[in-house]
Amino acid sequence: MTHELELRVRYAESDQMGVVYHANYLVWCEMGRTELIRQMTGTSYADLERAGVALAVSEANIRYHGSARYDDLVRVRTTLAEARSRSVTFDYLITNASTGARLASARTVLVSLDGSGRPAVMPDDLRRKLAAT
Amino acid sequence: MTHELELRVRYAESDQMGVVYHANYLVWCEMGRTELIRQMTGTSYADLERAGVALAVSEANIRYHGSARYDDLVRVRTTLAEARSRSVTFDYLITNASTGARLASARTVLVSLDGSGRPAVMPDDLRRKLAAT
Amino acid sequence: MTHELELRVRYAESDQMGVVYHANYLVWCEMGRTELIRQMTGTSYADLERAGVALAVSEANIRYHGSARYDDLVRVRTTLAEARSRSVTFDYLITNASTGARLASARTVLVSLDGSGRPAVMPDDLRRKLAAT
Amino acid sequence: MTHELELRVRYAESDQMGVVYHANYLVWCEMGRTELIRQMTGTSYADLERAGVALAVSEANIRYHGSARYDDLVRVRTTLAEARSRSVTFDYLITNASTGARLASARTVLVSLDGSGRPAVMPDDLRRKLAAT
Repeated sequence: MTHELELRVRYAESDQMGVVYHANYLVWCEMGRTELIRQMTGTSYADLERAGVALAVSEANIRYHGSARYDDLVRVRTTLAEARSRSVTFDYLITNASTGARLASARTVLVSLDGSGRPAVMPDDLRRKLAAT
Repeated sequence: MTHELELRVRYAESDQMGVVYHANYLVWCEMGRTELIRQMTGTSYADLERAGVALAVSEANIRYHGSARYDDLVRVRTTLAEARSRSVTFDYLITNASTGARLASARTVLVSLDGSGRPAVMPDDLRRKLAAT
Repeated sequence: MTHELELRVRYAESDQMGVVYHANYLVWCEMGRTELIRQMTGTSYADLERAGVALAVSEANIRYHGSARYDDLVRVRTTLAEARSRSVTFDYLITNASTGARLASARTVLVSLDGSGRPAVMPDDLRRKLAAT
Repeated sequence: MTHELELRVRYAESDQMGVVYHANYLVWCEMGRTELIRQMTGTSYADLERAGVALAVSEANIRYHGSARYDDLVRVRTTLAEARSRSVTFDYLITNASTGARLASARTVLVSLDGSGRPAVMPDDLRRKLAAT
């Protein structure tokens, strides 16, 4: 399962090198993840959290291939790579939406937490929807 | 002249009070300003900067009326309030796009700088386009 | 009552104009406020929140006089301007710690909320400590 | 060669899960890198950039072991892992400075760019200072 979103780079995201500050790409990954979860589960991650299910990033790996700049249109392609009982892995490909140039590729692993922040098995229903890929 | 944009609140923009951290509203104002300048001038602020014209925020005033939360749809209504030879003033009204609730109202004053960061009269062409309101 | 803190500007705080992005000054104000509250009350704002007392920014006004740059040492001077039963006002003066140049002056008004986010009178003890200026 | 710095977590760095938003750890890594470069080379990275030498992050890997929270004191231990002619690798260990608990471990690879943003061999002098580990 895959989701694609487009965003316009904010001035606030640029740094003095004239390009997007590298940590901001992880924020874009989170935006892609939010939308893929909405698409795959029919519910929002916001509602999952209100119901006491949290997914916390336990690992992030990112490679930068090019630079995004202020006012660029950027595309974030998010794919579910693996869904397990206690963790879920997403892959991301970030490109310039106008030129198609690859900007970054990333992977994040998220672990399932219960309402009090302890590791927990994901609810069956959520797991089934994420596994149906 | 007015421009309206919609954005979805990012997880990164929330804080431990469960609402959007207050400084992020200024980032949303900047997004609105970017789009209003594009709409009014037919060029982008990114291109203006490349041509050696910068607009730097010299004053920002913001009142918070309500709270935006993660995953909310937010509307930013940007209006040009005043265009002078060396400065331009924008007003913003930020609302919840689903409920219409007012979240914040703001005003920013920007001063015109030349390519080396010194205060400068705005180019005639830009000034004319901004003044035609 | 006044508190002064020094911080070193982070690369992440710069933007493509080569200076600190304007919204980040509000983050520095919050840092100053955190330390002044610790100094005045003998407790931390973190502990206040854990005890169900929140102070939410309801208004922020800032004027920019100069530019901070990456790696600059910056000084934030925070002063309590007014303490009332339901709100507290802080003033800030932000300067370059090496040259003394004024960078920004700001004022924020914060309103007292209870544990469920509703406006509330500040606890007597907190109010007394803040009023003793 | 190793450098240790301490920082106090800002409110702005927290998210609605009540912990530091994961992307902010990369900002702390950058702070550690800035100080280790100052210590090892006797010059600042800010001055290197002014002299036309840039180090751009080409890869970042981070594992999260625990959570930092608002107002925590955090320690960032930065180590130079490898210095090559065109790239330099840093390792980071981020801990809670009060309890010693491990919060995150990270590695970033940076590539050397010239003044116009093209990959370039690092200046001999810089390379020698970084290699002397």
